[in-house]
Amino acid sequence: MRIALDAMGSDDAPSSEVAGAVAAVEADSGLHVMLVGDEKALAGPLGGFPCRDRIAVVHAPERIVPSDAPASVLRRRPRSSISVGLGLQAAGEADAFVSAGSTGAVMAASLLLLRPLRGVDRPALATLFPTDGGLTLVADIGANIDCKPHQLVQFARLGAVYMQDLQGMRAPRVGLLNVGTEAEKGTEVLQAAYRLLAGSDLNFVGNIEGRDILKHACDVLVCDGFTGNILLKFYESVAAFMIRKLAPGLEGIGQREEVDDLLRDLDYAEYGGAPLLGVNGVTVICHGRSSPRAISAGIGVAVRAVRSGLVEHMARDLFDPGASGA
Amino acid sequence: MRIALDAMGSDDAPSSEVAGAVAAVEADSGLHVMLVGDEKALAGPLGGFPCRDRIAVVHAPERIVPSDAPASVLRRRPRSSISVGLGLQAAGEADAFVSAGSTGAVMAASLLLLRPLRGVDRPALATLFPTDGGLTLVADIGANIDCKPHQLVQFARLGAVYMQDLQGMRAPRVGLLNVGTEAEKGTEVLQAAYRLLAGSDLNFVGNIEGRDILKHACDVLVCDGFTGNILLKFYESVAAFMIRKLAPGLEGIGQREEVDDLLRDLDYAEYGGAPLLGVNGVTVICHGRSSPRAISAGIGVAVRAVRSGLVEHMARDLFDPGASGA
Repeated sequence: MRIALDAMGSDDAPSSEVAGAVAAVEADSGLHVMLVGDEKALAGPLGGFPCRDRIAVVHAPERIVPSDAPASVLRRRPRSSISVGLGLQAAGEADAFVSAGSTGAVMAASLLLLRPLRGVDRPALATLFPTDGGLTLVADIGANIDCKPHQLVQFARLGAVYMQDLQGMRAPRVGLLNVGTEAEKGTEVLQAAYRLLAGSDLNFVGNIEGRDILKHACDVLVCDGFTGNILLKFYESVAAFMIRKLAPGLEGIGQREEVDDLLRDLDYAEYGGAPLLGVNGVTVICHGRSSPRAISAGIGVAVRAVRSGLVEHMARDLFDPGASGA
Repeated sequence: MRIALDAMGSDDAPSSEVAGAVAAVEADSGLHVMLVGDEKALAGPLGGFPCRDRIAVVHAPERIVPSDAPASVLRRRPRSSISVGLGLQAAGEADAFVSAGSTGAVMAASLLLLRPLRGVDRPALATLFPTDGGLTLVADIGANIDCKPHQLVQFARLGAVYMQDLQGMRAPRVGLLNVGTEAEKGTEVLQAAYRLLAGSDLNFVGNIEGRDILKHACDVLVCDGFTGNILLKFYESVAAFMIRKLAPGLEGIGQREEVDDLLRDLDYAEYGGAPLLGVNGVTVICHGRSSPRAISAGIGVAVRAVRSGLVEHMARDLFDPGASGA
């Protein structure tokens, strides 16, 4: 198992990436990580760690700057860590690519180098929300601002296979994020998506309202990338807000542990970033503020996706709906 | 000051409404409340309270049933509490209408009986979000699923006047809910709305991401009713979810008080329901689960709206933008 890791992506690059890669190979004896980045910048952080026989450095000296349009990165920055790292996967030298770099650039380059699966118009970015009864995969969280009804159905299908393969579910419950439970609620796009989902072989449980998300009302929550992005970022900010509100009363040791548990439960870092679903390969996008633990978790997601045969299952399910079902 | 209160709207009707009306008149010696509902159902709950010289009952025997389309309520249920109560305001016998009944029915009947203000395409439903630095008015939260750019600008204008009049702000900061801060982010509708807002006399502070809402990044947050509704319902559910997560460690007295304070801070009941902005009159819609305190707070919002001259200020600002500014 060989994972190409963008070593230059996170706010703390490359130290978060180096420490995350080391933790990942220490935890998994079958894992090799290719750290893709500036070899000079990597030498220092990497020098202090053992396990280096399963961590290789692949030189990628070019920097992406904020003014680079995401879609132009492959062409304009061919020696950037994103272009080189994804190139390793496209060439079969790596099984997956993990990056905490520009989401837009990683998505655009993944689409160009890995290509979408047959039957997928636009890949979706997905992430796991911690809820009261378990994890809910939300797709899309920002790759597609506007969506057509059949694209929402594709997200549902991709998400269901993901939850089968990576969370071991038999028939993931698919919900459609909407402003009411009735079939005729929401925009015309959502009304049409509802009809398509209700007529599909998916385990569709209907519309899910904002108040029901945290009740674990479904395993795969489908929405356009605009709504999903607003919701994700809002959720990420809520825990910190509430802890600040509660802080004055939480000074004893007992409470402090509970708060730490809660924060960990709500921490995206536990869940390993956002897989890009629907490309012919494995791309996992981590948060820009990723800690070493978040990078290591992102690598873990990529490893499980490869070992489970996620991409083959998705390809088969899109070609022959229901074939990947339990 | 005469407020018409729908006595049949909430899940606990009419007892929440009766108790809320009594609390409101006890707190405000200039206030008269007309309890609009079934006089037989009201006699019992009302019998036990003093202050009845300033609480009148207006008989409205007809019940709205779930199969009534919201837009048909006025025509099909002319003797319902919503039709009668809004009729009192339309006839000048009440200064405002407050209801915890069907949001759709109250909105539709308000539009028909009160009419939109000149310059308003579609009224917006708004509500206050508690944030880290104060309250943010979010508009729309569900009246308009699809919005055009100039309608979003109308929401901004209506919301800014509301925050001036009811929260005493001089130049409320207006933000546009979006997936990034740059002007070219989001849908074409949002890009066009951004340009219109940036070119207006409003105190526009740009796009606001989901993660910045609770940082009090703006005073008026503009969005379509689909996104606003999802966000509001999600936010309402978050506090309960986090308290459940924290519960095991919050058994001591000290922490319990902090939690109670937090829950009160996050409780919609504190903020008095959702004003319908842009009609030629005052309609305040309370949560279906309203407690007496929530009903009383809703009446308080209606009273402040009438006393401040909110509707006249909105009409003037829409006719002559900037006229209501400080």
